[in-house]
Amino acid sequence: MSPAPMTERTRRPHTRRARDAALTQPPFRAVRNPHPPFEIASADEIDALHRASLRVLKDIGMKVSDGRARDFLKRAGADVNRDTHMVRFDDGLIEETLSAIPSAFTVHARNPQKTLTVGGDAMVFATVCGPPFVSDLDRGRRDGTYEDVCNFVKLVHGLNIFHHEGGAGVEPLDLPVASRHLDMMYAQITLTDKAWEPTWLNSRKRARDCIEMAKIAMQCSEEELAERPAFCTGINTNSPLLLDGAMSDGLIEMALAGQPCNVTPFTLAGAMSPASLAGSLVQQNAEVLAGFVLAQAARKGTPVYYGHFTSNVDMRTGAPAFGTPEYAKSIFISAQLARRYEVPIRSSNTTASAAVDAQAAYEAEMSCWPCVLAHINHMLHAGGWLEGGLVCSFEKLILDAEILQMLAAMLEPVDFSEDELGLAAMAEAGPGGHFFGTQHTLQRYETAFYTPLLSDWRNFETWRDDGSRNATERANRVWKRLLAGYEQPPLDPAIDEELKAYIARRKEEIARDGE
Amino acid sequence: MSPAPMTERTRRPHTRRARDAALTQPPFRAVRNPHPPFEIASADEIDALHRASLRVLKDIGMKVSDGRARDFLKRAGADVNRDTHMVRFDDGLIEETLSAIPSAFTVHARNPQKTLTVGGDAMVFATVCGPPFVSDLDRGRRDGTYEDVCNFVKLVHGLNIFHHEGGAGVEPLDLPVASRHLDMMYAQITLTDKAWEPTWLNSRKRARDCIEMAKIAMQCSEEELAERPAFCTGINTNSPLLLDGAMSDGLIEMALAGQPCNVTPFTLAGAMSPASLAGSLVQQNAEVLAGFVLAQAARKGTPVYYGHFTSNVDMRTGAPAFGTPEYAKSIFISAQLARRYEVPIRSSNTTASAAVDAQAAYEAEMSCWPCVLAHINHMLHAGGWLEGGLVCSFEKLILDAEILQMLAAMLEPVDFSEDELGLAAMAEAGPGGHFFGTQHTLQRYETAFYTPLLSDWRNFETWRDDGSRNATERANRVWKRLLAGYEQPPLDPAIDEELKAYIARRKEEIARDGE
Repeated sequence: MSPAPMTERTRRPHTRRARDAALTQPPFRAVRNPHPPFEIASADEIDALHRASLRVLKDIGMKVSDGRARDFLKRAGADVNRDTHMVRFDDGLIEETLSAIPSAFTVHARNPQKTLTVGGDAMVFATVCGPPFVSDLDRGRRDGTYEDVCNFVKLVHGLNIFHHEGGAGVEPLDLPVASRHLDMMYAQITLTDKAWEPTWLNSRKRARDCIEMAKIAMQCSEEELAERPAFCTGINTNSPLLLDGAMSDGLIEMALAGQPCNVTPFTLAGAMSPASLAGSLVQQNAEVLAGFVLAQAARKGTPVYYGHFTSNVDMRTGAPAFGTPEYAKSIFISAQLARRYEVPIRSSNTTASAAVDAQAAYEAEMSCWPCVLAHINHMLHAGGWLEGGLVCSFEKLILDAEILQMLAAMLEPVDFSEDELGLAAMAEAGPGGHFFGTQHTLQRYETAFYTPLLSDWRNFETWRDDGSRNATERANRVWKRLLAGYEQPPLDPAIDEELKAYIARRKEEIARDGE
Repeated sequence: MSPAPMTERTRRPHTRRARDAALTQPPFRAVRNPHPPFEIASADEIDALHRASLRVLKDIGMKVSDGRARDFLKRAGADVNRDTHMVRFDDGLIEETLSAIPSAFTVHARNPQKTLTVGGDAMVFATVCGPPFVSDLDRGRRDGTYEDVCNFVKLVHGLNIFHHEGGAGVEPLDLPVASRHLDMMYAQITLTDKAWEPTWLNSRKRARDCIEMAKIAMQCSEEELAERPAFCTGINTNSPLLLDGAMSDGLIEMALAGQPCNVTPFTLAGAMSPASLAGSLVQQNAEVLAGFVLAQAARKGTPVYYGHFTSNVDMRTGAPAFGTPEYAKSIFISAQLARRYEVPIRSSNTTASAAVDAQAAYEAEMSCWPCVLAHINHMLHAGGWLEGGLVCSFEKLILDAEILQMLAAMLEPVDFSEDELGLAAMAEAGPGGHFFGTQHTLQRYETAFYTPLLSDWRNFETWRDDGSRNATERANRVWKRLLAGYEQPPLDPAIDEELKAYIARRKEEIARDGE
């Protein structure tokens, strides 16, 4: 006998079997958006933004604090004022610069199967970098430690949806500031075989350390590293219209070493850029173009790419807002500008929420959907970012992994083959019947649909009797299970020795000579 | 002196002013998606789905339980088997049916400023209908009551983002089943001046009651109501391939009265439809087309529209899943089919989550983004749906309002006028300066950016010291404030009297004669 017909309005609770306890993930794989990019501005509007940013560069210019950077820019043909340190750029220099930038690049991972393409319709998901604080449900919000760094990198290694370890998650505030970049890089190189983003590039010596350690990890020369980049990273401009020495040093060192570097203006509309989306995008674009000129001046043809970060502040309080409608629109338009320039683009998965709650989820979605639709090539902060980037959250990392897994699954093509059209199954089930037992269903039992990492689809009674855990509480259990099951990827012991020796030597030098 | 430059990596917490306590909402207004619809299937693939569903209708057919419905179908030219009650449809009948359906329709609200267009690039957001349970943080999950119905309708009236009161929110289980539709309709008509969706159309007499009460509310005749529809609603097919008497009665009565009705198959892939997305969409499409034939047979030219509900079950447990990657894809493809047929389309904002948590938010986003991108014309369950439709949640209503407000704001065009490009502001702020005090910012202080209903952007310390409330806890406070500020829209006392008299008479009849 077939069951009583159910409808949307008469369906009642039913018993569901207990959920399988195993964590299921899709394999590590490239994510591509096969659909045309979603665009919200006309070609004329994009041209207006472009031309306005050229006017900014020509008429106002950018202040460049560092002498070496100004020298590079002067040699490239920019108009440098020795007294004010203002640098102005004419249209020809911008066009010449843009023509030299590669439209895509490859980042070679320690494990060649995890080597990445950045450009075109490919998307790379990289985890958070930069927060001084870390949080989890057990210990709350606190200063980051090196133990947190190691645990975070282990989790990123274990979560297949993340292509790139984006920056060791959190600052280890228990380590000395002058040398902690060495320890962070060691954790990144040894605890995962994915590509990594070095942190603390905002000094010339630190940048060099990251380059030297990458050469050891990849066992290659400086020239080979430049030909086969082993990491990508980014610098911020000090918006509005300022580039300080730390940032220009990072950009120049990356360019000299041929490592891909994004230039990301810190344009929070209403504070560091005009209180209008168009104005903030003009300023962002001008600052990106200025950064491009500096990188190409340091090494022509070096891979640099467009950095999007434009969001806005709450005009009533000055608080930064992320994952907002304006943020979404600025992603779409920035990606259009990057496509016009034929350069890859980086953006971020953001939220201003102080808790891993519904707000954190919907602001992350308001970041990730635009990134996916706009063909953002490198999504930094894609996992673990909380509280406007001040906090690295272990539960948020799991939440973000689920969101990105779902979006990646959504991009997988639908199979329209005859067997998938299912007419035989419909004939077998019959009117008012059910499909649980049909041959068609049995053939697809394991793989038909997306399997979640975090979502709980059990009925209310089962969910309640199992502890009424919300998604954040379940995320806490997921990362602990992942961490418990962590397996370190193999590394040649000789390389490990060489890395340790380099770190020991540099720590001695830093202790002796200072930073 | 300008502040020290901040960057993405060095930004530290700062003091934000206390947030203004007033609830801010955008006004009631039509929402349109000005961008081309997002499509994931090729024209050939859509054609393959269409042709496969014609084969289902011709070769397998649909079982129709009710004699009146079979008579209508027979007269329309369908092949009706008297013994098996199977009805088969040839291609010509389908084409003839499709050509008779209007491509858009208008739903007249009691307040003419809230009259709605359904079709084209217009989107109507309607709140949840059907759940037997209600929940809020104070009293938890419990049986719905008439008090809950009234409170829910009041909140929907007060939330401008919802265009349409979708069905009184929850079943009032404290009222007799035979007459509660009268009380629900009374609440809908009197507590809001937005258009409403009547509930319990699954019997001929109840459907007639809703029509009669609409005539009183709008003070019009049966003919005038058909010319100027006052509500829209929907029926489910009893998937697979079955249409029972309750559902066909509802559809026929709506058609006879000329009120728009969607036909929504209950196709949960792997249970009520094949365990493949393509197969479930073929079956959905076949059942929609069969419903269209019945409606057009009852009254040629009556507005019927495409109902999308296809999702999947968790194959391990049989639990329904919503807001999944498959759900998103089925929205995109269903919208393509509806556009091919030039009929409006309805879908839903769904989640399987048992709590108003991060999962509820990301599954809602995985429903709302596809609905917006696909040009879904009528988003039912857009506010308040929880736990696969079993629960009407007051906190989820607020969460959904925020999500939809953000998406609507995202669809607003960006202003690229000269003043918005902000060059004067950049010159005024200067390198390393700030924009808080510029003339450009002061001119835009109030309206520059989206103002949230629910999001909390305050810094951690302020948020913590104010109670560390997560988004769900804040939603609880938002709906209470809205309810406390509710103002009933005016209604002619004579109409109110007439409604009350109708209800009293019908309750007497029901008590005397039964349902």
